[in-house]
Parts: sequence; structure tokens; C-alpha cells
Amino acid sequence: MAQVYGRVALIGLGLIASSLFWAIKRGGLAGEVTGYARSDETRATAREIGLCDRVCDTAAEAVAGADLVVLCVPVGVMGAVAAEIAPHLAPGATVTDVGSVKADVIAQVGPHLPKGVHFIPGHPLAGTEHSGPRSGFAELFDNRWCLLVPVEGTDVEAIARLRALWEGAGAHVEEMDAEHHDLVLAVTSHAPHLIAYTMVGVADDLRRVTDSEVIKYSAAGFRDFTRIAASDPTMWRDVFLTNKDATLEILGRFTEELFALQRAIRTGDGDHLHAYFTRTRAIRRGIIEAGQDTDAPNFGRGGPKP
Amino acid sequence: MAQVYGRVALIGLGLIASSLFWAIKRGGLAGEVTGYARSDETRATAREIGLCDRVCDTAAEAVAGADLVVLCVPVGVMGAVAAEIAPHLAPGATVTDVGSVKADVIAQVGPHLPKGVHFIPGHPLAGTEHSGPRSGFAELFDNRWCLLVPVEGTDVEAIARLRALWEGAGAHVEEMDAEHHDLVLAVTSHAPHLIAYTMVGVADDLRRVTDSEVIKYSAAGFRDFTRIAASDPTMWRDVFLTNKDATLEILGRFTEELFALQRAIRTGDGDHLHAYFTRTRAIRRGIIEAGQDTDAPNFGRGGPKP
Repeated sequence: MAQVYGRVALIGLGLIASSLFWAIKRGGLAGEVTGYARSDETRATAREIGLCDRVCDTAAEAVAGADLVVLCVPVGVMGAVAAEIAPHLAPGATVTDVGSVKADVIAQVGPHLPKGVHFIPGHPLAGTEHSGPRSGFAELFDNRWCLLVPVEGTDVEAIARLRALWEGAGAHVEEMDAEHHDLVLAVTSHAPHLIAYTMVGVADDLRRVTDSEVIKYSAAGFRDFTRIAASDPTMWRDVFLTNKDATLEILGRFTEELFALQRAIRTGDGDHLHAYFTRTRAIRRGIIEAGQDTDAPNFGRGGPKP
Repeated sequence: MAQVYGRVALIGLGLIASSLFWAIKRGGLAGEVTGYARSDETRATAREIGLCDRVCDTAAEAVAGADLVVLCVPVGVMGAVAAEIAPHLAPGATVTDVGSVKADVIAQVGPHLPKGVHFIPGHPLAGTEHSGPRSGFAELFDNRWCLLVPVEGTDVEAIARLRALWEGAGAHVEEMDAEHHDLVLAVTSHAPHLIAYTMVGVADDLRRVTDSEVIKYSAAGFRDFTRIAASDPTMWRDVFLTNKDATLEILGRFTEELFALQRAIRTGDGDHLHAYFTRTRAIRRGIIEAGQDTDAPNFGRGGPKP
């Protein structure tokens, strides 16, 4: 694959940044990748495992001379990080991010960036329940979507180049406006995560059912919730606080629907339940046909030998 | 492995029955396995794929002379099936079931069974989102739990024999009383399933976010819900109708907790959210340490190469 950028700077070295680094190396997509993380420990780990060609002790040093700067920090600190790096950005550089919320990030980051720097917010829809510099792997973005949310008037050439980087990392790229992004993600990600966190918390609270029983007997459905609810707490706190309106709207719809199903259970309305459960099955088929999940039972864990 | 029963009859030939058949064959746990399903199509499929040594056209024929009869039908029809087979049961035979609810099944089935027949309700905590006679595989119960819920005064020898069958099929066996079972399962399985069904239904309803977007961008969390919500509609309708009280109690707790988190989002209480999300992470570690799930990211789908 051809080199897309001369120098890429990764600010924040968690799951997404480390995966992007390995994907860039796999594809030969950049001449040099610099990296910075606020924590001494993370920088030491990065140096130990060869994460980034050069790990810098300040964000300013990492972004100096970079053609592309990727902000890979929790959504809540994007603005502060942008303020910190702004004076050190090279003219003509592109700044992007990987945050799960877009309208709020645009409001936080945009005002800090100097004229002549291209700001193209982004969001790769990929992740696992693991976090930190050791959790990354080159295949994370393969066949996943990366959404770009360029603000009006953004340089077309700069967008094409960022798109090429993500495509080189294995992703399909699509453009979308920020408000629509935030609503789509509230449905496909933010509300499901809050619901999973809630259910796991409820199970933990129940004193009559001991923790050890909840854990032993988790294979009956609950364990899938626990995987989602094991994601990074700081990242998710920031997501909910910055995509408040869309998340609360979807949760309102969810509660309304849950109450209707609870009433059907209470009144013994089996037809209502059966019809509802039949409808939801079809969505699963759509996801498998779209190549966004495996049809192997239980995601392939402990399934039949092929 | 040693033969445990001379003849086993499977009534109903879906995921659990077909997996049990293949596990019995793998372990040499029975001399002959007969099978019956109400639908002509299912019986024809079973004959085609060699599911059961003998597929019978009536339940009466299947249970005649069987040492063990396993009811593998939806919870809602357990009573009707018990009434149908009762006159044909061999003296000294054991009847068990695999239903996800126990108190209601005991109330439905118990009264029909003649004296001299041992009734030992059971529940293997294993499954996938697939259903039907083709979905079974011998490894389904390996390292999973099977809960036995014997009523008071049940023959100890009969319990030991049924335990040996499930252990031969790969499961760990534990005994529990019916009410406790139904509460534990409401937490670990029934409430999570209803919640997943609800969230998938909500996503399907949203017209501003098109179906195709929900499907395309599902990898961000939602797709795990769709797997759970793809389970058999009839089975789950019956579970909710027959474990009504425990399920509604847990859903009540869930709603209470969800409202508290929604309020934290609305008021911007990040500390509350962060503390909650940190606590739920610990439960995930417990499940992995207990060997009930894999630590591979995303359940191993698309993760790093080992």
C-alpha cells in the first residue's frame, strides 16, 4: 500500500490509537508515527512494546511537523488537548479525532485550531472491552465502518487523504453530519451500553442471589451484557455526558417500550410478546448478511466444529 | 464412558434435544435414543440427518420402554405433553425436562405423572441464538451448568443417575430449589433477554435512523443485543409468562437503577457514572476467572491472532 502521510501523531495511546498504529505499520501508511500519552506509565509501556516509532514526553513535541494529528483521548478532554497542541501544529496539517460523540467534540476542539489547519472529526466504529496501550491490534478496523464528519467548507483534498488512511487501515469510510451521527450512535451504541451497565449493576446489587451464582450461571444471556459493561469507565462517562440529549431520548423510547412488554407479561398477552420477538429476529439476519457479525452460535465461542 | 440409561426418549427435537442426542452418542451414554416432535417437518429432518436412533410418529411410542424421558418442549406446553405421555410411561422410569422455568413446570407436569415414575426437573444453562433440529451439536453442554431441581422425597438413586447423564454430556451439575432457580434465572437470563428484545425493537422503530444504518453500524455494541434477541420467540414468550413474578421484580429493579443513571446523565453527575461503570467491570473479571467466557476481545470474533 502507498504511504498516505509523512508523519502521523497519535495523542492518547489506548485501544484505538494502538490499533491504528499497528494498522498503519501493516499497511505502510505513514513515514513516521509519533505518540504521546499523559501518563508516564503508558509512555513507558509504549516504549517497551514498540508502540509508535517515537514516544514523546509532551504533546507539543509529538505534533511538531506532523501531517496528521489523531486525538485518541476521552471525549471529555478533547478541548483541553486541542488547546495544548494548537500553537505547535504545522500549517496545512490535518487534525482528526476518534471520539464516539461528534457535535460536542466539534464545539470543544474547533475554536482552538488555527487557520490553515484542517479539522476533520472522525469515529471508527470498532472496539473491544479491553483498553490501554497493550490492547491494540492491527486487524481491529478490518471491515468496520469509520464515519467522517467534516464541517462545512473543509478542504476536499484533506478529506480524501484521511479517507485513504482509514481505508488503508481496513475500514469502510462514510461521511455524515454530526447531529445524525450522534443520534445513530445513541441507538447502536450509547443506549445499549448504558442498559448493559445498568443490568450488570442490578445483578451485583441483589443480595438474595449471590455474586458467585450470577457469575457461575452467566452463560444463559447475562455474560454478553457483562462484556459490554466491562468497557472503559472514563470513556463511557464522557460519552453519556457529551451526547446527553440523544442518549436520553433513546432511553426514553426504550423505557416506554419496556413498560409495554412488562404490561404484556403481567396481563399474560402472549401474542404481543411472540409478535415482538419475531420482529427482532429479522434485524439479526440483516446484520449477519451485512457482514457485521458472525452467524456462528454464541459468536463462535464453544460452538460446533466447522 | 459407561452407559447410563438403556433407552432415552427425547420429546421435542430442537436445539437442546438435538445437542443432547449428539452428546449422548459422543459419550456412549445410552443404548438407544428415541425421539418425537409434533411437526412432520421436524421429524422428517431428524430422520434425514440421523438425529435419534429411532424417530417415532407419536410421543406414546417414543416413551414406551424408556428409562429416561426428557421433555424438550417450550415451557408453555409441558403440562399437555406430560398428560399425553403419562399413560405410556414405564414403571420406574425417570421424567425430566430442560425448561428455563421450574416452579411452573413442576406445577404443570407433576400432577400428571403416575406413582412409581421419578420426576426430576432440570435445566441445562446452555444455548445459542439458533433453534430447530439442525442447530444441535455435541459440545453445547461442555463446561456449562445443569441445574437439577428435585422435589422433596425424590429417589436418591434416580437423581444420581440423571446427574451422571448430564456429567457424561460435559456439564457440571448442581441442585437447587425451584423458587431460587427461578429468581437466579430471572437475573442471569430472563430479564437480560427481555431488555435485549426491547432495545432491538426500539432501534427497529426509529424512522429517522434507517434500518440499514442500524445494521451497518451495529458493531459499536448493538449487535450483541441482536444476538440475544434472535432466540426462539415461542420459547421466550413462555418463559416470561411462566416466570412472571421474578422477571417483573428484576425488571422493576432494573428500571429503578436505569432512572438513577438517566438522572446522573441529565444532571451531569460524572462521578456517579464513573463509579458505577468501574464496579460493573469487576463482575466481568469474575466470569472470565470462573471459565464461563473467553477473555478474547469481542468473544474472539475478529480479534488479534494468538
